Amino acid sequence: MTHYSELDTPAVLIDLDRAESNLKKAQDAANKAGIALRPHIKTHKLPFFAKKQVELGAVGITVQKLGEAEVMANAGLTDLLLTFNIIGAAKRARLKSLHERVTIRTVADSADCVAGLGETFTDPDRPLGVFVECDTGMGRCGVQTPVAALDLARQISATPGLVFAGLMTYPAAGKYQAAAQWLADAKLIFLEAEVEVPAITTGGTPDIWHMDEAAFAATEYRPGTYIYMDRSQVAAGAARFEDCALTVLATVVSRPTEDRAIIDAGSKALTSDLLGLVGHGHVIEFPEAKVTGLSEEHGTLDVSACATKPNIGDLVRIIPNHCCPVTNLFDQVHLIRGDVLVETMAVAARGRVS
Amino acid sequence: MTHYSELDTPAVLIDLDRAESNLKKAQDAANKAGIALRPHIKTHKLPFFAKKQVELGAVGITVQKLGEAEVMANAGLTDLLLTFNIIGAAKRARLKSLHERVTIRTVADSADCVAGLGETFTDPDRPLGVFVECDTGMGRCGVQTPVAALDLARQISATPGLVFAGLMTYPAAGKYQAAAQWLADAKLIFLEAEVEVPAITTGGTPDIWHMDEAAFAATEYRPGTYIYMDRSQVAAGAARFEDCALTVLATVVSRPTEDRAIIDAGSKALTSDLLGLVGHGHVIEFPEAKVTGLSEEHGTLDVSACATKPNIGDLVRIIPNHCCPVTNLFDQVHLIRGDVLVETMAVAARGRVS
Repeated sequence: MTHYSELDTPAVLIDLDRAESNLKKAQDAANKAGIALRPHIKTHKLPFFAKKQVELGAVGITVQKLGEAEVMANAGLTDLLLTFNIIGAAKRARLKSLHERVTIRTVADSADCVAGLGETFTDPDRPLGVFVECDTGMGRCGVQTPVAALDLARQISATPGLVFAGLMTYPAAGKYQAAAQWLADAKLIFLEAEVEVPAITTGGTPDIWHMDEAAFAATEYRPGTYIYMDRSQVAAGAARFEDCALTVLATVVSRPTEDRAIIDAGSKALTSDLLGLVGHGHVIEFPEAKVTGLSEEHGTLDVSACATKPNIGDLVRIIPNHCCPVTNLFDQVHLIRGDVLVETMAVAARGRVS
Repeated sequence: MTHYSELDTPAVLIDLDRAESNLKKAQDAANKAGIALRPHIKTHKLPFFAKKQVELGAVGITVQKLGEAEVMANAGLTDLLLTFNIIGAAKRARLKSLHERVTIRTVADSADCVAGLGETFTDPDRPLGVFVECDTGMGRCGVQTPVAALDLARQISATPGLVFAGLMTYPAAGKYQAAAQWLADAKLIFLEAEVEVPAITTGGTPDIWHMDEAAFAATEYRPGTYIYMDRSQVAAGAARFEDCALTVLATVVSRPTEDRAIIDAGSKALTSDLLGLVGHGHVIEFPEAKVTGLSEEHGTLDVSACATKPNIGDLVRIIPNHCCPVTNLFDQVHLIRGDVLVETMAVAARGRVS
């Protein structure tokens, strides 16, 4: 039996009890709300957890990149939604190759994107399902109005090798009601135009415990971070620190002053993501400590408020601001049960940038 | 011949002419200043460039992690400085294994660190060289005063398997004069105590063109970023955009509004590092564009100030705020000469977190 404290640092620990509890709690909430769950694998990047999510009742998975889709399809996942506008012949060829062996659907928010897909997908007997991506307040991708969504849906339907799959949005955190209203408006416009909307898919861990309200306008929910949770989700009220399954194990390597401790986890372990927060993580063993700065390999802690202060050589576990990019920095994660190592697992879809 | 535009995006391009010019210019400046150059490989993480740096006249290389040292030693680099406090028996065993086959020295800023090294390194006939790390204003690791540096140097010298190698600092950007003064004060204190200081090593690309002034107190300079340069170095006055050798090639995947363009490079390609800057990079083809936001896979551009606006499918090259962590996100980089691909190279020391 290996205790996690025997691992070299920095290292990513995944608390299996917490991750499994988070997965089950969300699936139960989705079941109760009557909404399908399609978890986003960008957080864990592991076929192991993707399969667990499906076993628990997820209708399929969400991926953000073709490379992630390829890893998951190779591992046996069979129902994928790629929520990224696929542009260019090379990427479309990869998508086609996937479409020939698994159920994969994608999104589009422009006539250009749809036209490109229509060049590559030409078989009306095996059409590609395409959702219209809608900007319901996030200010990222997506058509700007329900009328524009209808126009694009019609273009998809008019393309022989494509089929209109429905509406897709990633709502701004905390703005689920505005997003639901946008989608409800769109449903009405599609109804009046007599264009069927097969599915409406939304998402976001920050508002995951409002899935019942999202279900008012949507048929499917795509949370990602909920499996591990993180400091930003605690700040958003979606989790407690005790729910956070991913921690970065680090060693105190320097105590240059009474109030300063330096750990061997910097931005290459915790990322620079702030997500509107102050500080770069929550230190479990020294909750009063503030992670005031990160350089690539060093984290700087202000320990002035700590009653007991860390010593050189002490191990600490940090709950990062944002767990998803952390798993993209490590080749492997360590699954633990309690304090005991269960398995060290390669992060299969790490670095699948394209 | 492959034009870079044929590459899948996002991708990291390295302009060889620029990188080689940056390397030569810095080596020439070091030669003129009479200071040894020991480049930090954390920026490129490639034995290919480490060897080129040594060929041009570098006395050796700097690494930040044992994993980087192992990659570089395996690739044939023979003189390494590990500028990180090595804590714990497991890491010391790895250091010892390296010490048995290459010249490697390290740093310490505490009695604990020195005592630990002394437990592992016990052979007076092959002692480990240890620099005292000094906090000359950075506020990270390092002893706080020249007197504390002297005390630690004496502890090192009193340990049979260790030898005092000199003083090491990473100065705060723009504070090279204060750092030089700190080191000059320390030299005087060591002189009065009749303790020889074999070497004084400092660094930092932001102040690289003041190496002649650094040479007033130091014998060695350890720049990293200078090989590629980036937007933060342009902001610091250390480079022009035309010197930046590393760019992230991205595709415009969405134009949801007149003023907004979305590219397929987000924080997983450009990192969230701001380094005090506003915005997340410089877009070469659309210099008036502002990279206003990054999510993991999407970059949001405000193109309102652009006379000609990007179209879906356009390729853009982004000079990131901070090039070093970018090479840690990609499994490979593409070396180009002009617009032509020369070689695609695995980032050998990527992800060597420990």
